[in-house]
Amino acid sequence: MRRCTILGSLLFIFFGFSMLNAQNDDDALFIKSIYDHSLTSSKIYDYLHTMCKEVGPRLSGSAGAEKGVDFCFETLESLGMDSVLKLPCEVPHWVRGTKEYVHMVQDDSFVEFHCASLGNSISTGGKEIKAEVIEVMGLDTLAILGRKGLEGKIVFFNRPFDDTQTRTFYGYGKAVDQRVYGPTRAAKYGAIGVIVRSITNAIDFVPHTGVTVYDSTYKIPAIAISTMDANRLAKEIEKGDKVFLEMYSECKNLPKKKSYSVIGEIKGSEFPDEIILVGGHLDSWDIGEGAHDDGAGCVHAMQVIETMKALNYNPKRTVRCVLFMNEENGLAGGKSYAEWSNNNNEYHMAAIESDSGGFTPRGFSCTAEESVFIEHLTKMKKLFSPLESYDLYFKKGGAGADINPLKSQKGILIGFNPDSQRYFDFHHTSEDVFENVNKRELQLGAASITSLVYLIDQYGI
Amino acid sequence: MRRCTILGSLLFIFFGFSMLNAQNDDDALFIKSIYDHSLTSSKIYDYLHTMCKEVGPRLSGSAGAEKGVDFCFETLESLGMDSVLKLPCEVPHWVRGTKEYVHMVQDDSFVEFHCASLGNSISTGGKEIKAEVIEVMGLDTLAILGRKGLEGKIVFFNRPFDDTQTRTFYGYGKAVDQRVYGPTRAAKYGAIGVIVRSITNAIDFVPHTGVTVYDSTYKIPAIAISTMDANRLAKEIEKGDKVFLEMYSECKNLPKKKSYSVIGEIKGSEFPDEIILVGGHLDSWDIGEGAHDDGAGCVHAMQVIETMKALNYNPKRTVRCVLFMNEENGLAGGKSYAEWSNNNNEYHMAAIESDSGGFTPRGFSCTAEESVFIEHLTKMKKLFSPLESYDLYFKKGGAGADINPLKSQKGILIGFNPDSQRYFDFHHTSEDVFENVNKRELQLGAASITSLVYLIDQYGI
Repeated sequence: MRRCTILGSLLFIFFGFSMLNAQNDDDALFIKSIYDHSLTSSKIYDYLHTMCKEVGPRLSGSAGAEKGVDFCFETLESLGMDSVLKLPCEVPHWVRGTKEYVHMVQDDSFVEFHCASLGNSISTGGKEIKAEVIEVMGLDTLAILGRKGLEGKIVFFNRPFDDTQTRTFYGYGKAVDQRVYGPTRAAKYGAIGVIVRSITNAIDFVPHTGVTVYDSTYKIPAIAISTMDANRLAKEIEKGDKVFLEMYSECKNLPKKKSYSVIGEIKGSEFPDEIILVGGHLDSWDIGEGAHDDGAGCVHAMQVIETMKALNYNPKRTVRCVLFMNEENGLAGGKSYAEWSNNNNEYHMAAIESDSGGFTPRGFSCTAEESVFIEHLTKMKKLFSPLESYDLYFKKGGAGADINPLKSQKGILIGFNPDSQRYFDFHHTSEDVFENVNKRELQLGAASITSLVYLIDQYGI
Repeated sequence: MRRCTILGSLLFIFFGFSMLNAQNDDDALFIKSIYDHSLTSSKIYDYLHTMCKEVGPRLSGSAGAEKGVDFCFETLESLGMDSVLKLPCEVPHWVRGTKEYVHMVQDDSFVEFHCASLGNSISTGGKEIKAEVIEVMGLDTLAILGRKGLEGKIVFFNRPFDDTQTRTFYGYGKAVDQRVYGPTRAAKYGAIGVIVRSITNAIDFVPHTGVTVYDSTYKIPAIAISTMDANRLAKEIEKGDKVFLEMYSECKNLPKKKSYSVIGEIKGSEFPDEIILVGGHLDSWDIGEGAHDDGAGCVHAMQVIETMKALNYNPKRTVRCVLFMNEENGLAGGKSYAEWSNNNNEYHMAAIESDSGGFTPRGFSCTAEESVFIEHLTKMKKLFSPLESYDLYFKKGGAGADINPLKSQKGILIGFNPDSQRYFDFHHTSEDVFENVNKRELQLGAASITSLVYLIDQYGI
């Protein structure tokens, strides 16, 4: 086995750290050079600009996604990596269509809501659906209302984001079941359509799309509306009279298509079989530019390579940059990558995913079973702070959807955690554009990830 | 003496922490309630909206500043504090005038730069100044060029912001001498005008104003230009031919005016003579809305009080909210406050200033001579993290310009440190507006500061 044994870990604890102390000055200097390059000469902001403005939206199966594959492939090739390849996968091909609306009917007129069909949703079948709307605050309520209460109705999932969560991903996690499972569950009780409150902290007019997952036979059209519209609809329902909605969409699920993840590799000079992966996902939703989600993650990963090359750093271990296809609605890229890697008997010593936006770095979360790795990194924490006011944390926690299938290789899976306060202002919306990514925050993310790759490359895990 | 003795500190170290541990659960619960209130029911975002959109720019001596005084006074009164007062001070009354420009002359035409006169600058005397421009990278170069090289010229200070500083305030600190002292120093060598590269990380067309300070007799007009324009001008100069600028401004220094800082107080129930101050400065530059600088600081401080009142918290020690006048160009409010406080034999056990924007909190810096306070807070750090992913640091460092004059009282001066990456995109510009402050980031700042006030109130320093 290539991975650390318990003895190895113990030896590392006793001897490794003293070795580290001796090396600390060199490491600190090199990490400073990583930060300096990232903040002054890196290409990351230009990469993101191209990804957003030339490539544009990159929904799996779309022409944009293929342009994204080409751009990532060409960029990695231009960096002089030892090998660059496109790994095939089969992706869903969902298309929004050109027209979609949700109206709240009032007397002779209607109020038009800001809306976006959920990814994977079926259409309204060429006609408008008009029905009474029933507000529910969660999946549990469906069973209480039952077929009697829901048949022929439009169900409106309106449980708000929990603003008390200081890490907004927890708030997201507590609300997103409505979007993912709400439509199919409501269909089981005879509902004919679903409206979902956008999953966001922001109270505004921006609708948030995202995937919904159907059980095979229970499919009804599902559309997200903005939080301002959701509040208005709730207010109208609260008055006590029946409220009617009209909804229309033209979504299509076309036959699956062949697509690709992009992989670039620098072969390790001493331990080529120990792979350190950095990655993000190159697909995005269709209504924005996928700037934070997950253009930022892709350009973070590509910048790690650019920085290593610019600083003439030749890694001891194999460093692999992987831009995954189809994270948003199927994970085909993540799954096919793990399968391919397992078939090749590979060992990912560490895999780092950036899929939480291009915001200012806060730290890394890590799935390590043993706390040794986190302790190890926490001791090395000062190295990450070329100036002392710039702290990063290392904590146990989730890593990333695309790299999770690698867990059978028993390496360490790590998620990059930028500050999460603004993420859900943009997530899965038309506002997820280049202009909403701050250059320095993006650069610092790349510097942090590159530094972590460097330390893992130097000292293992 | 009211302040801690060394013996007291030692006793605290040995016994205080065990007491703290026993209390930790209650404290953690109360701090969670502070965060919950701040993130869901606080008024801070509305306060900032009023400060920016109804009050508007608040330059010392302006009608806006007086409106700001009234708004802060009324807000603190509405919160039911034990006393609210306006403390007089005498402030400069500098007025930009209606027209200002910088042109780069090219053949028969000119290029118009994006510019803003520096605060305190004199005008160009009712006429346009036209002269050759000399680029310098810092104050030292002036002596090298001497009167021979500078007489009758326009000096262009163009040393850029140091992007390698992970805390941007250090980058600012390394560049700002050009703006503050450049004009008067250049005047000593016979220069007739000064152009300053805007002090910012951002490469854009937004000019940044800010104060310049003249020696009594050496006064020439000084105007900031955007970094894009500065780069263009530098490129033109680099070609080797003489480059000429035209500059014009109508600034005026009017007679000093009476103005006010605003002070609201909740009298301590057990130790009324031990004051904990929270504050920001209510004046701003004239060309924006002073949203981050320092509307955010003012509303942070007011929100501390609103949260305490909403949670029915009666402090043991006196909690005082101070909104200082005239931080930007004179510090009249900070000086008069310290004088008034010293005359009343007061003791500020702790003073916390928020004057670094409304961004996501990173930590607090503190001027404590002894590290006990920082250790103490670091041990209590977990209390600040209702969710473990939300870390704050406590470090030795600067506090705030308005509270610095309190240092003779030997209490602890603390600066709130939000993330600094975006601050200098907005600082002293027309872009420093409400829309560029994120609601949750602002709320989290207030929650962090309120929690710190609570802990100091509970346990002293």
